[in-house]
Amino acid sequence: MQALLTRAAYERIAARLPSTAPDLEVVVAEPDGSLTKDGQTFEPDQLAAEVWWLTVDAFGKRGAGYFDRLAKAPQARWVQTAFAGVENPMFKPLAREGLAVTNSSAQAPAIAEYVTIHAMSLLHPIAAQATHQAARQWTPVSFREVGQTRWLVLGFGHIGQEIARRAKAFGAHVEAVRRSASAEGLADSVSTLADLPSRLPEADVVVLACALNDETRDIADQRFFSAMKPGAILVNIGRGGLVDEDALRAGLDADRPAHAVLDVFKTEPLPAYAWFWDHPKVRVTPHASNRGELTAARGDELFLDNLGRYVRGEPLRNLTKPADIGVG
Amino acid sequence: MQALLTRAAYERIAARLPSTAPDLEVVVAEPDGSLTKDGQTFEPDQLAAEVWWLTVDAFGKRGAGYFDRLAKAPQARWVQTAFAGVENPMFKPLAREGLAVTNSSAQAPAIAEYVTIHAMSLLHPIAAQATHQAARQWTPVSFREVGQTRWLVLGFGHIGQEIARRAKAFGAHVEAVRRSASAEGLADSVSTLADLPSRLPEADVVVLACALNDETRDIADQRFFSAMKPGAILVNIGRGGLVDEDALRAGLDADRPAHAVLDVFKTEPLPAYAWFWDHPKVRVTPHASNRGELTAARGDELFLDNLGRYVRGEPLRNLTKPADIGVG
Repeated sequence: MQALLTRAAYERIAARLPSTAPDLEVVVAEPDGSLTKDGQTFEPDQLAAEVWWLTVDAFGKRGAGYFDRLAKAPQARWVQTAFAGVENPMFKPLAREGLAVTNSSAQAPAIAEYVTIHAMSLLHPIAAQATHQAARQWTPVSFREVGQTRWLVLGFGHIGQEIARRAKAFGAHVEAVRRSASAEGLADSVSTLADLPSRLPEADVVVLACALNDETRDIADQRFFSAMKPGAILVNIGRGGLVDEDALRAGLDADRPAHAVLDVFKTEPLPAYAWFWDHPKVRVTPHASNRGELTAARGDELFLDNLGRYVRGEPLRNLTKPADIGVG
Repeated sequence: MQALLTRAAYERIAARLPSTAPDLEVVVAEPDGSLTKDGQTFEPDQLAAEVWWLTVDAFGKRGAGYFDRLAKAPQARWVQTAFAGVENPMFKPLAREGLAVTNSSAQAPAIAEYVTIHAMSLLHPIAAQATHQAARQWTPVSFREVGQTRWLVLGFGHIGQEIARRAKAFGAHVEAVRRSASAEGLADSVSTLADLPSRLPEADVVVLACALNDETRDIADQRFFSAMKPGAILVNIGRGGLVDEDALRAGLDADRPAHAVLDVFKTEPLPAYAWFWDHPKVRVTPHASNRGELTAARGDELFLDNLGRYVRGEPLRNLTKPADIGVG
């Protein structure tokens, strides 16, 4: 069984491969575009890798053709990606018969921290306290407790569930919005996209954590914002395509939402002229909610765990469906 | 059985008294200092209340002598206070034979929110993100995850445990510091004050949530700060008397701690000339970490629950020891 790993990915896990997949033949994609095996040059036409690990360094110049090789590799049977969402059209070549694509849950705890800490820091009167402090005023500010708030989380995969775990420890009520209203242990209740008009007016925090597809594109539109509770907080860590950005701007004027925490945008990087940057009700971060220091290590764990499953012929974790890649 | 309640306290729970203590005779302390019962004037020399509810409105001018009556009432058998700590010398009259004093855990969830949200908003790069946003820079900032941090909580009563519940949902390691190193379900480990020199260097967040007494006065002194991990965060929601304020100032200069979140001070209200107000590494709040909107309702619940226990002759919740009142 052969695998193709980038040099950086291989270095991180090399020591742990023998115990996970003793018979794995690892070909390494070097930064200069060449291939090696056991330190020797490896001829590209000899490549017959079943296992591919699409790490973030496998793209662009740094990636030195890794993704192009994968897109054209007829022997590929399984690709572990480093991404939660694989809806970008660039991933279309992966949607093919006989290729299992697993996505990544490694960033979920980091993103959940980003979401909950940003939201809570806005729910609590940290800004008002700072204003009083600057004025040397001993002025107590009462606060709505997180335990009194209701959170509506669109998309309840790994990220949504990690958000729920944290918000619920504070006593918040967490409602998940999913394709089907099937029960979900970590959510207090579950609804579907069709229920949004009745669920949005109740929510103090609305989190967009769903995949981008035809059903969810521009889901946060004028109607969506009009239905929000005045004073509520919107957090988008899903995809920029989930939000109608003009509608959001109008919504902010009406305090629906009162604050938007945005990590993703229709155009990334966000151009310097974009209105978001200096809007007083918007927090902009550069698609970086996943940048927790443990994300890479969790990604390594996931690959090794799935590699063990693959070797043993067991079901893989985080298997995507063709629809997740925007096909079918 | 007779109880003396302030007007405001009585109004809040009147409707729920019949089911809890059907035979309770309630005398009401009116804001003008007079007493009434069933809307009629009640002569002070007839007062024989066993049950007292020392709500926050029972003090000062508003309190119209409630506390003075309690201090001198020989018939008093149980007083439910609205305070977590009763070490203030003003409470000394309550330390007497035959009077049960119960403290309040009602503010614990609010204070735990204050502690965890302030600390997490400093652990995460919210300030750095805002700086990049102001400069319109698409610059990702990696972050240490809360799940990588170690919290040391001095005092592990209601507040400490509520802090642990929240921090642990993020995967943080929580170590409790108690008088005795007895096991404590919500803490990952337990140590004593004597262990501080070895525990402080490990902690990313240090929370002072302990009672103020001779053992803990000025516990956060020069030695304490020197032992802290550079870059760590100090949160004090206990009492101002726990901190040597000059030593803290010097500690901040050495990044031990890197940030101090202070809700309590040796002198309150904090004078306008105090150095804390404009120190860039200090967040000042005016002894208001308890001001969650649910604190009052939780206090009502606690009084009613304890009242039912008192009526039925069952053990009371949150019973203090004479030492808690700084006696014996």
